[in-house]
Amino acid sequence: MSVTSSALASQLAPTSSLAGAYARIRQASLALCDGLAPEDMVLQSMPSASPLKWHLAHTSWFFENFILATDAQHRPLRDGWNFLFNSYYQSVGPMHARAARGLLSRPTVADVLDYRRDVDAAMRERLERGVSVELAALVRLGLEHEQQHQELMLMDLLHLFSLNPLEPAYRPATARTPQPARTPGWHRGREGIVMIGHDGEGFAFDNESPRHRVLLQPHRIANRMVTNGEFREFIRDGGYRRPTLWLSDGWAKACAEAWQHPPYWSDDLDSEFTLAGRVALDPAAPVCPISYFEADAYARWAGARLPTEAEWEDMAARLPDRHGNFVESGALRPLAADIGTSDLPQQMYGDAWEWTSSAYSAYPGYRPDDGAIGEYNGKFMSGQLVLRGGACITPAAHVRASYRNFFYPADRWQFAGFRLGQDA
Amino acid sequence: MSVTSSALASQLAPTSSLAGAYARIRQASLALCDGLAPEDMVLQSMPSASPLKWHLAHTSWFFENFILATDAQHRPLRDGWNFLFNSYYQSVGPMHARAARGLLSRPTVADVLDYRRDVDAAMRERLERGVSVELAALVRLGLEHEQQHQELMLMDLLHLFSLNPLEPAYRPATARTPQPARTPGWHRGREGIVMIGHDGEGFAFDNESPRHRVLLQPHRIANRMVTNGEFREFIRDGGYRRPTLWLSDGWAKACAEAWQHPPYWSDDLDSEFTLAGRVALDPAAPVCPISYFEADAYARWAGARLPTEAEWEDMAARLPDRHGNFVESGALRPLAADIGTSDLPQQMYGDAWEWTSSAYSAYPGYRPDDGAIGEYNGKFMSGQLVLRGGACITPAAHVRASYRNFFYPADRWQFAGFRLGQDA
Amino acid sequence: MSVTSSALASQLAPTSSLAGAYARIRQASLALCDGLAPEDMVLQSMPSASPLKWHLAHTSWFFENFILATDAQHRPLRDGWNFLFNSYYQSVGPMHARAARGLLSRPTVADVLDYRRDVDAAMRERLERGVSVELAALVRLGLEHEQQHQELMLMDLLHLFSLNPLEPAYRPATARTPQPARTPGWHRGREGIVMIGHDGEGFAFDNESPRHRVLLQPHRIANRMVTNGEFREFIRDGGYRRPTLWLSDGWAKACAEAWQHPPYWSDDLDSEFTLAGRVALDPAAPVCPISYFEADAYARWAGARLPTEAEWEDMAARLPDRHGNFVESGALRPLAADIGTSDLPQQMYGDAWEWTSSAYSAYPGYRPDDGAIGEYNGKFMSGQLVLRGGACITPAAHVRASYRNFFYPADRWQFAGFRLGQDA
Amino acid sequence: MSVTSSALASQLAPTSSLAGAYARIRQASLALCDGLAPEDMVLQSMPSASPLKWHLAHTSWFFENFILATDAQHRPLRDGWNFLFNSYYQSVGPMHARAARGLLSRPTVADVLDYRRDVDAAMRERLERGVSVELAALVRLGLEHEQQHQELMLMDLLHLFSLNPLEPAYRPATARTPQPARTPGWHRGREGIVMIGHDGEGFAFDNESPRHRVLLQPHRIANRMVTNGEFREFIRDGGYRRPTLWLSDGWAKACAEAWQHPPYWSDDLDSEFTLAGRVALDPAAPVCPISYFEADAYARWAGARLPTEAEWEDMAARLPDRHGNFVESGALRPLAADIGTSDLPQQMYGDAWEWTSSAYSAYPGYRPDDGAIGEYNGKFMSGQLVLRGGACITPAAHVRASYRNFFYPADRWQFAGFRLGQDA
Repeated sequence: MSVTSSALASQLAPTSSLAGAYARIRQASLALCDGLAPEDMVLQSMPSASPLKWHLAHTSWFFENFILATDAQHRPLRDGWNFLFNSYYQSVGPMHARAARGLLSRPTVADVLDYRRDVDAAMRERLERGVSVELAALVRLGLEHEQQHQELMLMDLLHLFSLNPLEPAYRPATARTPQPARTPGWHRGREGIVMIGHDGEGFAFDNESPRHRVLLQPHRIANRMVTNGEFREFIRDGGYRRPTLWLSDGWAKACAEAWQHPPYWSDDLDSEFTLAGRVALDPAAPVCPISYFEADAYARWAGARLPTEAEWEDMAARLPDRHGNFVESGALRPLAADIGTSDLPQQMYGDAWEWTSSAYSAYPGYRPDDGAIGEYNGKFMSGQLVLRGGACITPAAHVRASYRNFFYPADRWQFAGFRLGQDA
Repeated sequence: MSVTSSALASQLAPTSSLAGAYARIRQASLALCDGLAPEDMVLQSMPSASPLKWHLAHTSWFFENFILATDAQHRPLRDGWNFLFNSYYQSVGPMHARAARGLLSRPTVADVLDYRRDVDAAMRERLERGVSVELAALVRLGLEHEQQHQELMLMDLLHLFSLNPLEPAYRPATARTPQPARTPGWHRGREGIVMIGHDGEGFAFDNESPRHRVLLQPHRIANRMVTNGEFREFIRDGGYRRPTLWLSDGWAKACAEAWQHPPYWSDDLDSEFTLAGRVALDPAAPVCPISYFEADAYARWAGARLPTEAEWEDMAARLPDRHGNFVESGALRPLAADIGTSDLPQQMYGDAWEWTSSAYSAYPGYRPDDGAIGEYNGKFMSGQLVLRGGACITPAAHVRASYRNFFYPADRWQFAGFRLGQDA
Repeated sequence: MSVTSSALASQLAPTSSLAGAYARIRQASLALCDGLAPEDMVLQSMPSASPLKWHLAHTSWFFENFILATDAQHRPLRDGWNFLFNSYYQSVGPMHARAARGLLSRPTVADVLDYRRDVDAAMRERLERGVSVELAALVRLGLEHEQQHQELMLMDLLHLFSLNPLEPAYRPATARTPQPARTPGWHRGREGIVMIGHDGEGFAFDNESPRHRVLLQPHRIANRMVTNGEFREFIRDGGYRRPTLWLSDGWAKACAEAWQHPPYWSDDLDSEFTLAGRVALDPAAPVCPISYFEADAYARWAGARLPTEAEWEDMAARLPDRHGNFVESGALRPLAADIGTSDLPQQMYGDAWEWTSSAYSAYPGYRPDDGAIGEYNGKFMSGQLVLRGGACITPAAHVRASYRNFFYPADRWQFAGFRLGQDA
Repeated sequence: MSVTSSALASQLAPTSSLAGAYARIRQASLALCDGLAPEDMVLQSMPSASPLKWHLAHTSWFFENFILATDAQHRPLRDGWNFLFNSYYQSVGPMHARAARGLLSRPTVADVLDYRRDVDAAMRERLERGVSVELAALVRLGLEHEQQHQELMLMDLLHLFSLNPLEPAYRPATARTPQPARTPGWHRGREGIVMIGHDGEGFAFDNESPRHRVLLQPHRIANRMVTNGEFREFIRDGGYRRPTLWLSDGWAKACAEAWQHPPYWSDDLDSEFTLAGRVALDPAAPVCPISYFEADAYARWAGARLPTEAEWEDMAARLPDRHGNFVESGALRPLAADIGTSDLPQQMYGDAWEWTSSAYSAYPGYRPDDGAIGEYNGKFMSGQLVLRGGACITPAAHVRASYRNFFYPADRWQFAGFRLGQDA
């Protein structure tokens, strides 16, 4: 986390506003659970996903461990929970196996909500006492962390529900008038040396720094994301049966798991399973979720490529605003791009994270934060690819142009789609 | 199920008594869930175990499918649940994958309890109308089936809780005065041709028939089960480190899974995890649960062997009663044998199922019941071994001398212990 | 090995004859390798199979370890080979992992042949010096062991060749006039108490003893083995698609591995891969190899069952001779039964091992041989089933009525077929 | 393959010289097999490795398929071998499963050598007839391909031998006077925009093109590779026991496979297994082979990082020559750097491939070659990292500054080591 002291000073000085953000963001996690049964919150559908109950506990553990425990008088609020709800911070201590998170009926959801209340009370008290700039930065990190888990909760829940033959719906579908897809087009990017990375304004994770020079080759970026309708054409043209369209690892995976379409689509390509249950496929909406391998194969089929993360960021950073379809819209699924007269690329923010062709690695001069927090981002810099722009399940305030999300190329439950790029 | 019509006629004639048994046994399943949270009832700890919720639904499905659905007017009570709660009856239709039972948050526990109420109401109405002898026999089978699942619920729950670092307790431990173990001794069995198998009195599963002649070799049977204390001696003598004491498959399994003691014991051999949480090991109580491989290795170490199922049954059938530590005692764990002056073998019934050396196979002339019910027992007759006598989590009325339970030799979560036998 | 001293005294007294048997049987192993390349002898096609080179070395190790090493002056003939070529004798010392036998290019085939020559020279010298009755019994055991491995060599080689798209042939097919299958019929077995097990005449393995009384139920045994033609009818009638015909474990295996016919058959059911390469399926010849699960499913389809091992042995022991299609015939595949006028059951010996319904377990009063040799048979008494009668790749002199072969029910590369039995 | 016509015209015009190269390079493959037994050449030690026999056949298939088969009259030289020896060219047709290459005893080594002779004769004839520039380029590609497989043969063989408890040696160790390691030091790299990629002189693979501008950050590169002695210090300082030194995926792998030192080292860290068998560890020689995860952990421990591929290439391209310890030296293992007075970074070429921090991906404007040859490099551009500079088992003429080798970060049988880099 590269927030400089001065930036923080101005930004977080009145801890009352930090306390406000704390209350608001913590409450948002609970709001996501409205209408869910304890049963929905305790299951783990695969090793990469976690029970919702675990997310609620882990995000609280984060505040207890990184904020409250800095107080010498602090005693662990619950015996044995440090072990259960530490995710991957080796510096903090041993942890429960990730794949075994779904084997714990206790603590119950009610126990976890109790724990959250205790953490929140202590945090409120702590924030009222006033915190140092350093601690305020950690609180802010904890809130951004909480927002990441809000998104994880929704994607993990969708994955769990997708495995249930009864096809339960999390929220009713919002009414929506079908519209045609925007005519595809290209925006020419800048070329030559530009700056990318966090510019020091407001919060950013450590992996977005330092801001540094990169060299952009001549290139273009598509004016919107690839749609369900376009992707269906790819499938109908044999996209999942032609190995030469695929990366070798992708083809191996697609064969091993018998991929024939995006994971939540029906075999007849007419419907998809969403947080609103099964709905008709909207041909104008971005295809999502999808793996990197599928996005890459489509791009090859289309005679294009995926943008690099620098190309994406340089374009996004120059947009007038970060407007987009985020979790606050309530749609909970990507929507068709506007077909208005705007000359700007659309859907850069929100709808679905966009796969880039860039491997997730350290920026030149990157330094992880000190201490256990240094494990937050840095140790995942192998084998994954960068995604940009946020999704329809991401809190709007959580995203920015320099934000780097990352997943493995075969992952296909995170809300990921893509737009095309090309050499110019 | 080999209940003859005449036996049934006398036994089940007043359907009011069948209805009484139905009400009582169905209620007992619910009573087992007292104090459990929905979270405890939805998880699946391993493919061989099932969520408690599933047990509650499946046993109800059994009645709906095999009793209510015989009525031409019957319409499925819930859409899609036949698929979810059919366990293994291929004749009935396709079924949800066993290993995926823990991926279903819906129907919730409340939904399942609702379903039980609907099934029970319909069953009550059906029984009041009066049922044929054949249908009465199926109802009785459904009740015995329900009792089997009551036992499964407790062993599955213990397994689930055993994986939780918080070591939750299902019920408080019952107070108990420690006592020494009974002095080991032998009872000489009969030799020559004897009859085993169900004798036609009351209910029995089809695999207990036909009653038939077997030839017993000269043999002896131990006067009680092998105790924790004795098994600890085996361990201290290197029992888990000496391959020559083990069957080849058992040694391979023990190495692959790093067995060093019974599954719920602590590494210091001083305590064990039970339905009452972690308790001090009682040296006088039967060791339980344990796999066949471990029992067999102990027997070899002790210079003895396990009894055959015929040896066991012939001895058990001649006892004056079926007295034993069953679920009704509330102990929920095996207890030390009496050290009284009785001349009879003790613990033949209750405490823990006893491994025999007999492979689970068809009796001469065995015929599975007709129709889908024929899948109940017969198709499991390979690779498993017979256990006899019931356990401390078995309903007392559910067991009899001819009862054949069966598990794989590596299974070690069912409440299984053993007693020694020897050639005479 | 239950050979009594007196039997041995008469049988093995002139060590010259033992030396003759040694020379003859050891030579037979080498003859099996005629025409094979070193490449054929070094590969391991699956963990259950071994490279031919390994068989040649292991059988020699057996003599070195159990005979030559009893001499105090003996020094290991090769450094490190005890580790490599001990199969499973934990009492002797640690051993190379079974599944890794195909990772050893060294020692080469030539090295192994060299080793065999050294062992043989030392053995010759040892036998010339004269051996005790006990040692003579071990030599005899080593020769029977060698013959078992001769059979293993051929079945392992067939399995290896079956995985090669080029479908190499081990030996040319022998010309053979097609003939119709013998008309199926039944032979009534004896009922009541009979004796089975080794009767003390000549060599037997320890698991064939003690001879003991068993009780035979009324039964019949088929007059020949089930044929390819009959088994093809089963397949055409949906035998591999109807779960109710199968044991539960068998169905799970058949689904997991997509079984649709016997392992070496072509999908069109018209040809099979044999040691002579691909040949047309002979409808009159016994189906072979086949798993227990397949044999059991066929029997259920046919309204019959498999014989028990006692039923089989009592019938076989009363035949006038052990005539059959053994390895000496050169056919190397099962042949159609004679359709002559004989009133005897045919194919009891040779052609293919016959699955019985009997789990492989200890006879009453069974005692393994003393020392490491005690690991030969006893530790495999779980999870396997008994097969009887020998096959077309078994040396004729190796088999007898009391011989108990054993494999897992899913194994299907050993030369196993079956005949039907039924209750009478 | 980015060879321009004009470059080829001058370079390959006299096909006699191409024929000479062909004869020489093809012969070199055979020379590697001197002293090996057929058994050594048929085994596959893991799915990533291939039998030597397969390498010999596949490289010949490459010429048959890509050169000889362009002739309309060409008939396949061997039935069914296209299927067996196609490695991964989906455009060419279906292929034998990679993991099953070690299940083929036939064709034998002799058969394969025969095939090589037939291919070579036809190629000689073809080259004598004269070839087009395009075809000449493909021949040249085939020769570079052959050289890659020569290296694979040695690393695959070492891996196979390493699994043999007898620890066979491929070649005797060459005598070598121990010397101290060169004093570590840094060379400052260039910063700003530089050109990397193939410059058009001579042969290059398609993935080295196009030559393009990259932006170098201020940086330094170590004056030699990290040595065994240095790496041993890392181990002794707990390098394999401290998760915070490792990438998350690396730590997971190291735990799952119980890594405690480089793969061929002894547990006492005093010796290593090499192509000359087990030898004392040379503290001054580069550590090799090693995975990316291990190299990365070491760099973090040392407060440094790995160089990027652009940093490496820009440094290497400016060296006066490509002198290094290649296969021609006969050492077959990395050697200590000179401690002379040279001011240049040493060991940039030869000894061991050097891991860079760069993910293997397409250069801006990259276009795979047309047709099946386009599968050579491009489809592997995910999940792997770039290595540079060649190794002691690489033919000297095969390497150049722009050469991009690539492996997965967990791979540790290829001859890979590393040098440190740092920000300046």
